[in-house]
Amino acid sequence: MQQSIRVISLGVADLKRSRSFYTDGLGWSALLDVDEIVFYQAGFGLLFAIWPLEDMTTDVGSTLQPGSSFSLGHNVDSPQEVDQIVNLAREAGATVLKEPQDAPLFGGYHAYFADPDGYLWDIVYNPGLSVADDGTVSLGAPDA
Amino acid sequence: MQQSIRVISLGVADLKRSRSFYTDGLGWSALLDVDEIVFYQAGFGLLFAIWPLEDMTTDVGSTLQPGSSFSLGHNVDSPQEVDQIVNLAREAGATVLKEPQDAPLFGGYHAYFADPDGYLWDIVYNPGLSVADDGTVSLGAPDA
Repeated sequence: MQQSIRVISLGVADLKRSRSFYTDGLGWSALLDVDEIVFYQAGFGLLFAIWPLEDMTTDVGSTLQPGSSFSLGHNVDSPQEVDQIVNLAREAGATVLKEPQDAPLFGGYHAYFADPDGYLWDIVYNPGLSVADDGTVSLGAPDA
Repeated sequence: MQQSIRVISLGVADLKRSRSFYTDGLGWSALLDVDEIVFYQAGFGLLFAIWPLEDMTTDVGSTLQPGSSFSLGHNVDSPQEVDQIVNLAREAGATVLKEPQDAPLFGGYHAYFADPDGYLWDIVYNPGLSVADDGTVSLGAPDA
């Protein structure tokens, strides 16, 4: 498993309130701001996302516990790598909350596991996410 | 405030267990592994840290609530910037949990605030942390 975190996602109680805090209050510029989620670039090849906790709960498919209301996204280049990393994590003692599967939400393939403290890792193959040489992340349609 | 996250820190119940999971289980290489904390490089200019939740609680100086057992570290270049960002966040509605102050733990200056959901931001001036042109982070003594 490569040592890489691509997305930090916070499950928030009120998306409008959080958007106001980060965008208006702290002055951050959104990379993508839609009704359901807001993404901000937060470093070289790094995204910071806020989305409703209820949507995150639905996506994870498991009741979110204290300490697991956010996730760390690890992106890979193929569905096979998602499978491999989830197997590796399972052998290491992780609890797999969502087995690797297609993700209609973004047109890819992903899985969730929880580390020993319950912290969530989202292992993701997302053909629509790319990182330019200067670290800028793009979210869009798969290669046309 | 620049859009930058430099460190993702998880407060963990059992450091040995978590080190075993990430280092032995997932095969990550530590940048710094000492009794109190383990740092891993997790991207360009990005660190991932695990440290005992009790130490994090002491550092924050506030009881950690569900959803705030981890922090996002935003590093700046001077103590004055810490003050400025904390003021900005306060005006935006953040709860300041630890006013800007010297940090004997790492020889810098920092503050903690909580966003609207209670997610912790650690605003840090750490003269011992530097990022090379290739994104490699170094943790060491301040400039000799």
